Order: sequence, then structure tokens, then C-alpha cells
Amino acid sequence: MANITKKVSWSSRDDDLAQGEGTALLNGATGAARYTRQFSGGSIFRIGRLSTVDLEEEITTEEEAILSRPKEIPHNEKLLSLKYESLDYDNSENQLFLEEEKRMSYMGFRCLEINRWVVCGLIGFLTGLIACFIDIVVENLAGVKYQLVKQNIEKFTEVGGLSISLILWALLNSVFVMVGSVIVAFFEPIAAGSGIPQIKCYLNGVKIPRVVRLKTLVVKVCGVICSVVGGLAVGKEGPMIHSGAVVAAGVSQGRSTSLKRDFKIFEYFRRDTEKRDFVSAGAAAGVSAAFGAPVGGVLFSLEEGASFWNQMLTWRIFFASMMSTFTLNFFLSIYHKKPGDLSNPGLINFGRFESDSVAYNLYEIPIFIAMGALGGVLGALFNVLNYWLTIFRIRYIHRPCLQVMEAMLVAAVTATVSFAMIYFSNDCQPLVQDQAEEYPLQLFCADGEYNSMASAFFNTPERSVRSLFHNTPGSYNPLTLGMFTLSYFFLACWTYGLTVSAGVFIPSLLIGAAWGRLFGILLATITSSGSIWADPGKYALIGAAAQLGGIVRMTLSLTVIMVEATGNVTYGLPIMLVLMTAKIVGDYFVEGLYDIHIKLQSVPFLHWEAPATSHSLTAREVMSSPVTSFNRIEKVGTIVDVLSNTSTNHNGFPVVNEYIDNTEPGKLCGLILRSQLIVLLKHKVFVERARSCLNQRKLQLKDFRDAYPRFPPIQSIHVSQDERECMMDLTEFMNPTPYTVPQETSLPRVFKLFRALGLRHLVVVDNENRAVGLVTRKDLARYHLGKHGLEELQLAQT
Amino acid sequence: MANITKKVSWSSRDDDLAQGEGTALLNGATGAARYTRQFSGGSIFRIGRLSTVDLEEEITTEEEAILSRPKEIPHNEKLLSLKYESLDYDNSENQLFLEEEKRMSYMGFRCLEINRWVVCGLIGFLTGLIACFIDIVVENLAGVKYQLVKQNIEKFTEVGGLSISLILWALLNSVFVMVGSVIVAFFEPIAAGSGIPQIKCYLNGVKIPRVVRLKTLVVKVCGVICSVVGGLAVGKEGPMIHSGAVVAAGVSQGRSTSLKRDFKIFEYFRRDTEKRDFVSAGAAAGVSAAFGAPVGGVLFSLEEGASFWNQMLTWRIFFASMMSTFTLNFFLSIYHKKPGDLSNPGLINFGRFESDSVAYNLYEIPIFIAMGALGGVLGALFNVLNYWLTIFRIRYIHRPCLQVMEAMLVAAVTATVSFAMIYFSNDCQPLVQDQAEEYPLQLFCADGEYNSMASAFFNTPERSVRSLFHNTPGSYNPLTLGMFTLSYFFLACWTYGLTVSAGVFIPSLLIGAAWGRLFGILLATITSSGSIWADPGKYALIGAAAQLGGIVRMTLSLTVIMVEATGNVTYGLPIMLVLMTAKIVGDYFVEGLYDIHIKLQSVPFLHWEAPATSHSLTAREVMSSPVTSFNRIEKVGTIVDVLSNTSTNHNGFPVVNEYIDNTEPGKLCGLILRSQLIVLLKHKVFVERARSCLNQRKLQLKDFRDAYPRFPPIQSIHVSQDERECMMDLTEFMNPTPYTVPQETSLPRVFKLFRALGLRHLVVVDNENRAVGLVTRKDLARYHLGKHGLEELQLAQT
Repeated sequence: MANITKKVSWSSRDDDLAQGEGTALLNGATGAARYTRQFSGGSIFRIGRLSTVDLEEEITTEEEAILSRPKEIPHNEKLLSLKYESLDYDNSENQLFLEEEKRMSYMGFRCLEINRWVVCGLIGFLTGLIACFIDIVVENLAGVKYQLVKQNIEKFTEVGGLSISLILWALLNSVFVMVGSVIVAFFEPIAAGSGIPQIKCYLNGVKIPRVVRLKTLVVKVCGVICSVVGGLAVGKEGPMIHSGAVVAAGVSQGRSTSLKRDFKIFEYFRRDTEKRDFVSAGAAAGVSAAFGAPVGGVLFSLEEGASFWNQMLTWRIFFASMMSTFTLNFFLSIYHKKPGDLSNPGLINFGRFESDSVAYNLYEIPIFIAMGALGGVLGALFNVLNYWLTIFRIRYIHRPCLQVMEAMLVAAVTATVSFAMIYFSNDCQPLVQDQAEEYPLQLFCADGEYNSMASAFFNTPERSVRSLFHNTPGSYNPLTLGMFTLSYFFLACWTYGLTVSAGVFIPSLLIGAAWGRLFGILLATITSSGSIWADPGKYALIGAAAQLGGIVRMTLSLTVIMVEATGNVTYGLPIMLVLMTAKIVGDYFVEGLYDIHIKLQSVPFLHWEAPATSHSLTAREVMSSPVTSFNRIEKVGTIVDVLSNTSTNHNGFPVVNEYIDNTEPGKLCGLILRSQLIVLLKHKVFVERARSCLNQRKLQLKDFRDAYPRFPPIQSIHVSQDERECMMDLTEFMNPTPYTVPQETSLPRVFKLFRALGLRHLVVVDNENRAVGLVTRKDLARYHLGKHGLEELQLAQT
Repeated sequence: MANITKKVSWSSRDDDLAQGEGTALLNGATGAARYTRQFSGGSIFRIGRLSTVDLEEEITTEEEAILSRPKEIPHNEKLLSLKYESLDYDNSENQLFLEEEKRMSYMGFRCLEINRWVVCGLIGFLTGLIACFIDIVVENLAGVKYQLVKQNIEKFTEVGGLSISLILWALLNSVFVMVGSVIVAFFEPIAAGSGIPQIKCYLNGVKIPRVVRLKTLVVKVCGVICSVVGGLAVGKEGPMIHSGAVVAAGVSQGRSTSLKRDFKIFEYFRRDTEKRDFVSAGAAAGVSAAFGAPVGGVLFSLEEGASFWNQMLTWRIFFASMMSTFTLNFFLSIYHKKPGDLSNPGLINFGRFESDSVAYNLYEIPIFIAMGALGGVLGALFNVLNYWLTIFRIRYIHRPCLQVMEAMLVAAVTATVSFAMIYFSNDCQPLVQDQAEEYPLQLFCADGEYNSMASAFFNTPERSVRSLFHNTPGSYNPLTLGMFTLSYFFLACWTYGLTVSAGVFIPSLLIGAAWGRLFGILLATITSSGSIWADPGKYALIGAAAQLGGIVRMTLSLTVIMVEATGNVTYGLPIMLVLMTAKIVGDYFVEGLYDIHIKLQSVPFLHWEAPATSHSLTAREVMSSPVTSFNRIEKVGTIVDVLSNTSTNHNGFPVVNEYIDNTEPGKLCGLILRSQLIVLLKHKVFVERARSCLNQRKLQLKDFRDAYPRFPPIQSIHVSQDERECMMDLTEFMNPTPYTVPQETSLPRVFKLFRALGLRHLVVVDNENRAVGLVTRKDLARYHLGKHGLEELQLAQT
């Protein structure tokens, strides 16, 4: 078994490590064929059956498949990309680090702790400000747009020729969306979408390139404003989570690499460990600002990110969340000229539900559960459709121009559909003063009435949700709701995945609220028993929860978010039940939307536990081997050569004690990272130089921090031929106590250690403490439970 | 440095390990003297200063201190007790285990997962039932008591001679409390108090003896009924958490050792890993039933327990919480003859706060923060007083009879104080129909009026809290509230720590609500600006939060609990701010109440992180060494002798490969537990027997599970002289891949590994993979940050 696995283990290379002849051949001719095999589909196999397959033969036949490659990989959720690296959540406790820690007094640690609180406060404050900015700009721009179109429609309703209004509307939408799409497609493609999948990955420990840059934030904020004002079926809530995360990554580092400003503060936090903690806080602050849900924000961060729960960290996250919702609330209250009124804790506000103690009754619970199941089914349908669409996009719409054009097309279609719906609807409702419609369209209705369909379409989605929750029974007729649900469902599904920054939370809520309200109305009609069924708003809320749960599949955090957004815990229990049902039913068909997109990106995402049936695998089979190690005192030339080898591109190297006679490998004595070696080479920390010029400055931890996180590539470092003969002493800089496991350790055990400590490299040692292999994220992420038991994903270089 | 630490390291022995001459001497004469040193106070030292102290001399002088020992240890929070063992959260992945896992199909794992959900459902259901039972019994018994006393008072108010009423009241209280105290003191002392400190310890990974037994549950439930009915200043909420935990530990094992019934179900869950997960769910279910706060329950369990956050586990905990609150609600609704009315989600119900969107205003926030600070100060005062009282009790009131007498005394005094307060109060209020008073006492008031002081005292504390929150402004006059706060503060402080089962949540809330309401009234008087200050109930709520936060120092979970109990998230932000302020201010003076009691029990409690300044310590200094190891094939006699050695009483033993020539220790190849060895000895799994009778049954994992958790002591296992010469092959049973660290690993790194994975033993190996030491919980828990930097606690056998 072990032998067989060895035979194929070249296909399990990893950017962190990827060692052995297999990968080394990737550049050569044979390598090209073998490399292709990774893409050629047929090699997804059951581990258990491996022993009976003659792999060599399989490879030979597959070499012929090289030309047909593009057709055989319509999508890539069966691959793991090697382009993603891991965050280093484990501190490298080398001598420099330990000396610094020992030098620090107790007061020093207290100051650090206070600094952490200050940073979290700043994160919350800035995230709140950004949310406030987005809210105000969107409200004003959308107001201008809707006024313009409304006046135009009113003008042409009387004189005829409403098609001009339609063109105006579609044009306005398209222009906004075009701007939003152009900046995303051409300047920062990572800012597309809600950013939640990316943040999930980041919190999971995957370094997604460019995801927490300032430029991303700017594009994201402008993009989301454009797409919401452009009338797409999107929300501005999801992007807030991404924005919060970027703010956190920026503030905590006390400098901006993009702006080339270094404020010389928070230098201690310039490493992955601290940064990731702050990014959790930022994501929580984002959720908090988006939904006015500080506790929900904390839970979101924990549910999606933290494997290791730390009380102090949780409180800081909580503090950031509070600051964020409070800041937003405060500035919005000033903007709304009611300073001190704390009733706008989030971007979306579900409005206040009646705090009636008998808001629902016991016999309604089965109905809620049924709605949850329906939400699960509809959510799964949404996800499947969006999955197909995304694959289509990956295949055919990958050029920025095409992406912009698609976005504009969707904007125009959205306007047209809305217009058609409004035009052909004859659902007239009397105008009531206290309702949420800000732009009531009279259209063909009698005076003092407004078009009910228009109130659903002719509004920002947040307002529409609120109307569906709170308008008095009878504000919408069933046909309106049905048509609205149907059209909005497909519009939202088409929209998610466009090259614009926008979220899927609000459209989901809106779809759910519409069919939920419809459900409530039908229920009231069927039973016609009055009082308790009278409020369709309640069913709108439950439907919204069901639909959202069916699409995104969060439970605990989403429950709390919904409860906080409704401002009332009465509906806590039904919302929980609904979300759980939606998740269970939905999971039966397909994964959650974010997980689908993560998989399509081939991100090596680590789940909570190793697959249940993976006890038969051990570290020996999982690890990449043999490893490239360095001696404790190593020749510079060797180091440069290893680092320059683009075919392997390793990031971590075990350090071993000198070979005794070069026949057997030495004992493991440490682990050193590529980034550390780069800094050492850059500063030319060679043994000979230290001897020759005694006053050479000793390298400090600060030098490593200054280079973080964008360490220069090895190609940019010039090493002369003389210097190549020098020696480098790694003792001081390597992590002398890397975590290790023996070769016999089972996969779940390796997984647990890796996940619990957020490791990047785990050294596998033999009985004599010699490094025989390295386990990295990709070695663990590639095992997953498929329909036929344990499956192994293939690794790909893209 | 290392040498010095070695010199004193005999004082750092541990039940799990405790190896070396130091501890071995504990039984001898010199040992006795040295042992005393552990108690003799003076040896609390700064690690940093150690090198200048001549320890040998110190020991000599301290030998004389032996007689004065009791006086020098007034309390024991500077010691760590050796009587507590760790839970084994790390699976022993031996061959038996791996074979079983490999045999299991994917469906098998699915079934297990479903079983876990079933168990959690059962836990929630039973916990809810217990809560319901307690609630109904307390309500009825207290009703009878108050009716009796009320009639009596009314009778004697007219004819004079109210002292008879006082005697009746005091007598009734004392009798109830006596019953409650007797069962606790004589039958199950662990059932005393709220049980929250014990559950915190259990979730932290400390095995507190008898804490999750059925007997404990029975005594706890009866005890809490008696003490609440007995009119003590206690609540019935805290004990629910303990009850839930016991239910969880019982249900998940599918058998009762006390009742000697084995239902042959859930056998897979018979190990510490699974059991601890279920106990988390039970504790959450308890919180949920107590406060109607399912999310709060989950957060409580996580905040207090889980170091490793697992999504699936969290959802199961959530499910148990939901089931619990739902069950309670459902049965209470039937009991109250309003089936289907879901307005009683918890034992305590804060009543519904007005869901007004401008419930508080921005400028009130500083006031809330000030109240939080006041709560912190008052909480710290409470804790300090209770700390002194507890030390007094440890010293003088340790016999059960005395404990019962103290409890009765408190009951009588409580009645007397209440009576005096009511008697001398002249705060008469008009009777209003819809207020919460169920037993309005007219006493000396005019007809149609009732005594306001009586309504605070003459009621279960839950009702009093509700009246303070909701009664119309003016129901209480300031003097009444002031007197009530003062007297109740001291009564509650005296009561906590009595030998009765009862909680401190409700008394804290009550005290806080009283002074909070007083604060609100005074504020309204001072500003006299009407409307916004008009509602003292709001201030009562904030005061309650502040006081509770100041005493127990929970933040995130308590915020959510309070929000869920008020049924309204409007007050979320102020409650958060208040709780955080209370914690920060309180922590400045003294620790939280539960932590104080945990420390006084000398429990080796692991905090979230190692002390900040402990980077200078390495595994070498921390570990216990040398270790007693076994060979892979070991003589039975050796094993029996080691296990029988009462002076060491180790629980885990590294297994090493055979010594080559007995001069150097062998390579580490596994770890075996005492419990495993005991089972092996009991079943006589000897190499010779296996050879002689070929058909001997192979030992199964089931045999280990059947013996769990009460493994027989080594003394009960008879091993004949012949058998002592046999050999035992440990290969199949040991954990072949224990986690290891090198000797140079820093303490924070060791701590992180230990805490994140919930380990019990961590083997320290040298460069050649030889076991040189073992780190256990006590080796880590004994370092803490004191006023003078890093301090080391002493270890004690008691």
C-alpha cells in the first residue's frame, strides 16, 4: 500500500514543498506528459482500490490525452491549485524572537495588549465609517436615479411612449454598472463578488494574493456603490465583510505598502499570526456594520475562521464589532439629523417586529420547518444554476471586456424585466402614509394609489425587504409576489458571479421574503381562520431566513445575525429551526454557494476535521518526500540554487545537523522559511563576512518585519560568485522546535494538529529524529469524502 | 538557570507523572520535611531571582516550620493540588482503535454522527424536564410557605404579637434549608454551591471526582429546591448548568454505573474525548433552560470550555440548547394551562421590555459606563468579602454538622432581616392589578395598599427581579431600595459558599437591579427633566448587568444571555459596555468569584495562554524528569510494582524500544496509560498465556470501554508470583504516536500545543528521540503572573 502510494505521490506536489523526481521532471518533456495527467480527469481514484491498478500503464495511455486537455477540464473543482500559499499562524520561535520576548518586561506585554485593543477599536471605527460612506452615497445616488426615472415615467405615462423611460432607466443602470465593472475587471479582479469566499479562505489560513490590499478596498467600495446604484439584484452587505478585513490588515500593520508610508507603529504585529487575528476582527466588524449584529459578527468570524478559540481574542473581536456598529449608527444619526438616535445599527435594518409574546404558536413550528425545507430546495437550485453559470463563465467569459459587457447586459435586462413587470402589473394599492415606499409609482393606478409591483422593484433591495416584512396585510397581491419571486430569483442567480463587487445576502433575503409573504397569504386564504395567520410579514421573515440559509448554509452565526437584525429574540427559535432545516435539506443536494466558489477556485481549504474514513492513511502516505534540507551551516550557493529552482518553489526547509559521513541524513534540528532565507541573503549574513568585519550590524527581528509581507523574489537578490562559496549559519534564525509527527501518525491525527495550531509546515520524522517528509496544507486538503468514499484531488500549477 | 531549576523541581511533582527522587522521598522522614516546605509559604519565588538563592539552606530552615504548618496556610490558593487528574481529550490511537476505525464504513460514521445528534437531543430534553420539575416544585412549595406566613402575619398584625410570625417564618426557612444542607453535607458535598466552578474545571479538562455522577444530580436538584424554598438569597439557575452537565455525562454513556444498568447503547462514546464534548452540550442546555438563552448557552460552553472550536460540535451544542429551552417552555405552558404559549423559555424571565426604538439615548452611554464601573467595584467588594468568608469556612467550618448549622443560621437570619426590614418600612404603595406581586402584604398600610419592602423580600428572587425591572415608576421609594440593596448584598455574600446547592446569578441580579433602580430614581430626581429618565426599570436592568458582571466577570456569553433573557436586542450595546467596564474595573481589584473558588480548591486550571513573560522557560525546566518508561515488551512484575508505587501514582508512561545494552535509554515508541495497563493486567494479556492457550480471546476496545471511567485500582488486581515473571507486549495497546516536543521548546509553545489539543501527557524528547521528560497539566498550570512577575505555585498532595 505504502509503495503504491509512493509511486503516485509525485502527483501530490505542493508549492510549499513539492520534492522528489516527479516534480523535478515537470519542466522536461516526460514531465509535461506527467503533468498533464494531473488534469486528465480519469485519475480521480479511490485510495482503497489503488493497489490493483497498474498506474504506470495508466500514465502511458494518458500521455496521449495531452492535446485534449482543455476539453477534459471544463471546471476545476476536482483540482487543488498550487498557486495558493498558507499563512504562517505558527510563530517561528527562533533565537531572535526569544531574545526579544525575554527582553520585554511585563509592562511591555501590557502595552502590546493595549495596542491590540486600540487597533481593534480603530478597525471598528474605520469599518463603520466606510459602511456609513457607502450607505450615504448609495442612498443619494439611488435617490437621484429613481427621481429621474420616476419623473420621466410620470411624464410619459400621460403622453404615452413609455419605452423612452425604459431606455433611460436601462441606460442609467448600464452606465453605473459599467463603471463598477470596469474598475473591477481592469484594475482589481479580486474585488469581484462579495469577497466572503476570499475572506473565508483567508481566515482558514490560505493566503489569497492581493485580497487585503488597499487598492482592493478602494475598488470594492466604489464597485459596490456602482452596482447597487446600477439597480442590479445585489446587496451592499457582503462586501462590507471584505472591506472590514482589508481595513484590519492595513491598520494593524501601521503602514501602507501601496502608499509607501510607514507610520512606525504596531511593528510587533507584522507577522501572519497577529495579522490573521486582526483580520478576524475586521471581518466581524464588517458583519456588524452590515447587519447591526455585533454578536453575529463575532460568531461569523469564529464559525468561518478560528480553529483555536482564545477568550481575549474573542473579546477584542467583539469590541471591534461594537465599535463598528456604533460608529455607523452615530454618523448615520447625525446624517439623518437625529443625533443620538441609535436605531440604525446596520446597513440593513429589518425594521422592528412587534414584540408580542405570542408572536407565533406551537402548531406553526411544523409550517416553519416546511418553509425551511423549501428554502433548502430553492437554495440548492440557486446554487446549482449559479454553479453551471460560473463554469460557463470560466470557459467563455474570461476576458475583461467580455466581463464588462456581460455586467452591462445584466443591468439592462434587470431594468427591462423590472419595467415589464411594473408595466403589466395591475396591482394598485392605496397610498398609506407610514409605509416604507419612498418612490411610489402611480403609473396606471388611480389617484391616491400606487403600483405595488413597482414598490418591490423600484427601490433599493434593502427597502424592498423591509416593505415585505412590515407592510400591512394586503399590500401585495399573490400574483405580484409570485411574479416578483420568479423574476428576481433568476436575476439574482445570473448576477452573482458577475465581475462587479456585490453581495448575495440581500437578494437572497428578498427572494425569500417574497415567497415567504406569498406563502403567508396563501396560508391565510386556505385556513381563512383569521387572527394568527393574519400577519404575512412573519412568514416573509421566515421565508427570508430559509432562502438565505439554503443558499449560504451558515447556521449559528446566521441565526444570531437575523435575530439581531430583527431586534427581537422572539423569532430566535423558529429562525434557528428554519436555518437548520434549510442547511440539512440543501446539503443533501449541493454545497453552499461560497463553498462552491471556493472549490471552483481550487483553493486548498481545510475543513474542520479530516474525512471520517481516513484513519487508514498515515503521515507516511500523505507527506511529500524526500525533503530538501539544509545543514545548520550551509553553503550560500546551495541555498541560492534551491531557492531559485522554480520547479519546486518550496517555502519551508528542515534544517539538519551536519551529516556525519554524508551517507545518512542528519537529525532534524530546526525549520527555516524561504522568506527568512531571502532576508538573510539580502543582508548577506555570511559567516565569513561576520569574521572579516567585526562591526557588522547584527540582524534584528525588525529586518524580517520590515520585509513582511512582500518578501522580494530570489531573482532580485544578487549573489556574486565569491559569495556563493561563503557559508551561512542558520542556527540563530531557524525555528529550533518545529512541530513534528512520526511516520505512523494517522491522517486525522496529523490533520488535527495541523488545523488546531494553524500550521504551514509539519515535519515528519522517523524513529531516529531524521526528517523524512513534510506535510503542508495541500497534502491534507486533497483528501475528501466523495460519493464513492475517500477521494483524492489532483494538484495543478494554476 | 537550568540547573537551579532542576534543584527545586522536586517541588513540581504531579500525579500524572511526578518522577525523581524528590517525590519518592515524600513517604520517608526527610520527605515529610520537604513536603512541608511546599506549604510553608515562603517558597513562592520569582523565577528570575532564583539563581541567587541558596535553596538547600532555605529547606533546612524550613524543616523547622513543620509544626506551625496550619497557621502558615490559612488558605491554599498559592498551591496546586495533586489530587485532580486530567481528562484525556486526545484519543489513544493504538492498533485496536485504528483497526476499529478502519473496519467502520462511511455509513458507520454517519450513524455515529446521527447518534451524537440523538444524544444531544436527549440531553436537551432531559435538562429541560429537570428545569421544569425544579420550577414547578419550587413555585408550589414557596407558594404554600408564603401563603402560610402571609396569613399568619395578617392574623397577628391585627391582634399584635408579630414576633410569632417571625418565629414561624424563620422556623419554616430553617427547616427547608436544614434538609437541603443535610443532604449536601452528608451525602454529596460536591453538590454544594452553584456547580459552575466545577463545570468550568471539567470543561477546562480537569477531572473533578464525583462531579458528573447521578447521585450528585439528585442531591443537587433536591438541594436547590430546599434552599430556594428556604428563602435564602440564592437562585436556582446556576445549579441548572451543573445538572445539565450531569445529564449529559450520564445519557452519553448509555449506562449508569450507580444504578448498575448498561443499556448497551452509545458504547462508542465511552471515552473522555466524546464525553467532554457532550458535557459541553449539557452545560449549554443548562444555561439555555435557566435563562431561556440558547445562543448564550452555546457561548457559555465555548467561553468556559472549548479550546478547539469545531463547527459540527457547536451545532450539536446549539441543538441541545434549543431542545432544552423548548422542552421547558412546552411543559411549563401545559402546566400553566396555556399549551402552545412559548413565553416561558427559561427559569428566569426578565419580562418583556418595551421595544421602543429610542429606548436609550447617546448621552446616557457615559452613565451606563459609570454604572458598569460601580458594578465592578461592588462586585469586587462582594468577591473579597466572600473570599475572606470562604477562608474562614475552610479553617473553622469543615465538619458537616457545623456546615448544616451555619446554613440554618443563615436561613434564620435571612428571615429575621427580611422581617425587620418589612416591619420598620413604611413604604406603602397602592395595589395595581397588573403588577408582579403575588403575595402583597398589607401589614400596616392602608387598605388597598401594600408594603413595598415586603414585595422585594416576600417573594422568590426571580419575581423580585422582575418587579424591579417592570413596576411602574414610583413603586419603590429610594430608602426602601437602599436598605434592601444593603441588606441583600451582605446576605447574598454570606450565603454563597454555604453547604447548600444554589446559585449566585439571581442574587447578583437582584442586588444590581435594586441599586440600579435607586440610581435611576435619583437621576430622575436630580435632573427632573422628565420623559427620558422616567423609566427606572431601564436602570434596574443596567444595574443588574453591572453587578452580575462585576461578580462573575463573563462578557460575551453574559451579554448574549442578558439580551436573550430580556427578549430584546435594543439593550444589547449598553449591556455589552456595562459588562466590559465591570470586568475591567473588577479585574483591577480581584478575580471573578468562580475563579477565586477554583483557586481556593487548588485546581490546576489552564488559562487561555501561557503567562506573557514565560518565554524564558523551556520544556527542559518545566517537565518532570526522569520519567519511568516501560519497554515495548515488559515484565509483568515491573509493571505491577510501578503501578503500585503510591508515592508516584503516575498515569502515563512512555514506551521505549528495548535498551541495547541497558546503558542508554531506548527510543520513544509510544505512550501507555495507567488505565490501559490495569485492563491488560486484569485480563492477563501476557505473552506466555497467548502462546500456551492459542484460543485466548483477543482483547477488544470494548474491554477498555467497559471499564471506563471507573478503572479498578491496582490493589484490586491479583497477580501471582508466577505471573509476575511473565512478559506483556504493549505494542498493540500503546498510543504509537504521542505528541512530542524537543527540550528547547519554550513554555508558551508547549502550552499552546497542550491546550489546543487538550492533552494529558506531552512527552519531551531529546535530539535522538529518547524520552527525557513528561509535561502534564500541573507542570503548566503552576506558572502564573503575580504582582512580582512570573510566580510558581507549589504542589500539594491534598
